[in-house]
Amino acid sequence: MGVFDPYPSRLSTPQGLVARQEPVVYGQEPMEAGLTPEQWQSYADNGFLVIPHYFSGEETAHYKQALQALLADKELAQAPNAITEPDSGAIRSLFAFHQQPGVLAQLVQDPRLLSVAQAILGSPVYLHQTRANVKPGFVGKPFYWHSDFETWHVEDGMPRMRAVSCSILLTDNAAYNGPLMLIPGSHRYFVPCLGQTPEQHHQQSLKRQQYGVPSQEHLSQLVEQGGIHTVEAPAGSVVFFDCNTLHASTENISPMARSNLFMVYNSVKNPLQAPKYGLAPRPDFLAHRQSFKAVG
Amino acid sequence: MGVFDPYPSRLSTPQGLVARQEPVVYGQEPMEAGLTPEQWQSYADNGFLVIPHYFSGEETAHYKQALQALLADKELAQAPNAITEPDSGAIRSLFAFHQQPGVLAQLVQDPRLLSVAQAILGSPVYLHQTRANVKPGFVGKPFYWHSDFETWHVEDGMPRMRAVSCSILLTDNAAYNGPLMLIPGSHRYFVPCLGQTPEQHHQQSLKRQQYGVPSQEHLSQLVEQGGIHTVEAPAGSVVFFDCNTLHASTENISPMARSNLFMVYNSVKNPLQAPKYGLAPRPDFLAHRQSFKAVG
Repeated sequence: MGVFDPYPSRLSTPQGLVARQEPVVYGQEPMEAGLTPEQWQSYADNGFLVIPHYFSGEETAHYKQALQALLADKELAQAPNAITEPDSGAIRSLFAFHQQPGVLAQLVQDPRLLSVAQAILGSPVYLHQTRANVKPGFVGKPFYWHSDFETWHVEDGMPRMRAVSCSILLTDNAAYNGPLMLIPGSHRYFVPCLGQTPEQHHQQSLKRQQYGVPSQEHLSQLVEQGGIHTVEAPAGSVVFFDCNTLHASTENISPMARSNLFMVYNSVKNPLQAPKYGLAPRPDFLAHRQSFKAVG
Repeated sequence: MGVFDPYPSRLSTPQGLVARQEPVVYGQEPMEAGLTPEQWQSYADNGFLVIPHYFSGEETAHYKQALQALLADKELAQAPNAITEPDSGAIRSLFAFHQQPGVLAQLVQDPRLLSVAQAILGSPVYLHQTRANVKPGFVGKPFYWHSDFETWHVEDGMPRMRAVSCSILLTDNAAYNGPLMLIPGSHRYFVPCLGQTPEQHHQQSLKRQQYGVPSQEHLSQLVEQGGIHTVEAPAGSVVFFDCNTLHASTENISPMARSNLFMVYNSVKNPLQAPKYGLAPRPDFLAHRQSFKAVG
């Protein structure tokens, strides 16, 4: 623990924004990943890239059906990797969906997706986490503003910002059903969060976010610089976003569910260390340590 | 109470949608109101009309400043017509803002707005209610789906659907700050709501909506027909919407406040009667009975 940590968090006193220490894109060859130079630059500048209609309607329907089969599995809903709505008991998030047999296990190895992740991170990659976020109609709950990297750095010991999330939209994401909101440019700053982390934090934080959230002052500052981008895109679209891009989504009170898959690709050059501040490692379904191996 | 009520609500058993009994537009002359025939038809078909940039930037800033002065008034925040956020104590809604001296009292008599209301309702009009809805950044709370007419019919004894709401956007309304969502075509159906109404309901309902909300089945049916229109429009825009158009808005977790003014113009041919089901009349700031007189 004697090593200097450039990204301290869960502080007892407020601290300013920390400039990002490492690159956003590590690779040099967007064309190999099937991206245009403009898309590549946009990802570097904004910290995310939305590609509409990445998958065909047929492919998307196929994946959606596979997810629905998992969600209907009563036994799975009792498993630790299934996070249920506080009120309704319906599955809100299903972690490690790729460990279930079927097409979703193949999807996470899709060569097109892998080539983008590898190009951005400039190395082979492995799966740090996968999850399906299901926002059912009428009762879908919000996610408050957060950087995934802040959590992974503190609670999983991920040393560097060298991971990329890939979100696949299984339903239309529109203004009315709680779409993903991103703060462009926020990936260039680490936002130290206030509040000590209680043991077994993840059991609560996955239901309601209380610790490890940015201050209103920092959020205002970053939104003033970059605004807010709301991802309104049809089913089959894909969003790549940097592990440190601040994001959130509001509740879904529309009748239309909003279901997205997330795969988090981490560079094999960025393996997990011990969690910070003496915290115990989180379960494998949240941060794959045992299954560490390159895919693709 | 022996008179047949075509629009029963607060029922103990579910009932189907009731077809609207009366016209949507009562007048014949859109041109007199400064509306195009297309705008007129759109209002009739959808139950609302959005007119971007209705007020200039200067006018809008003027009105916004006047509202902010009222919101900063600590004494006013204690008044019954000021509804505060459950958590923060900040003013969420200010009713009867037009009774405060200043430019907002003049705004409600704006000849352009009045001419639209009179043209739609085909008669002189008076103010049934005015309110400012302030959704502060980070903590702005949601409004669940509802028809204003359902409340006004049951709790205020408004006999017919012959009132129009006018919303003036004082800030940009965007996907990220809890904009107004409307269900096009929903104004053509009365949605009977379940649940008996407790006495002094308004003291709670203005903070959190619990009674008098449409069922998920009815909402799904109407959204399937008409979809959802999210009002994303710049400050200075105006929305006219029928008293019976279903609408909602989500929370605001962005740093940007969303402030809108609402004026409800009712036809002088549609005066309030006794509330339904033996309910006591609500306070004058919610439903102006004493100050009933035509404006404009």
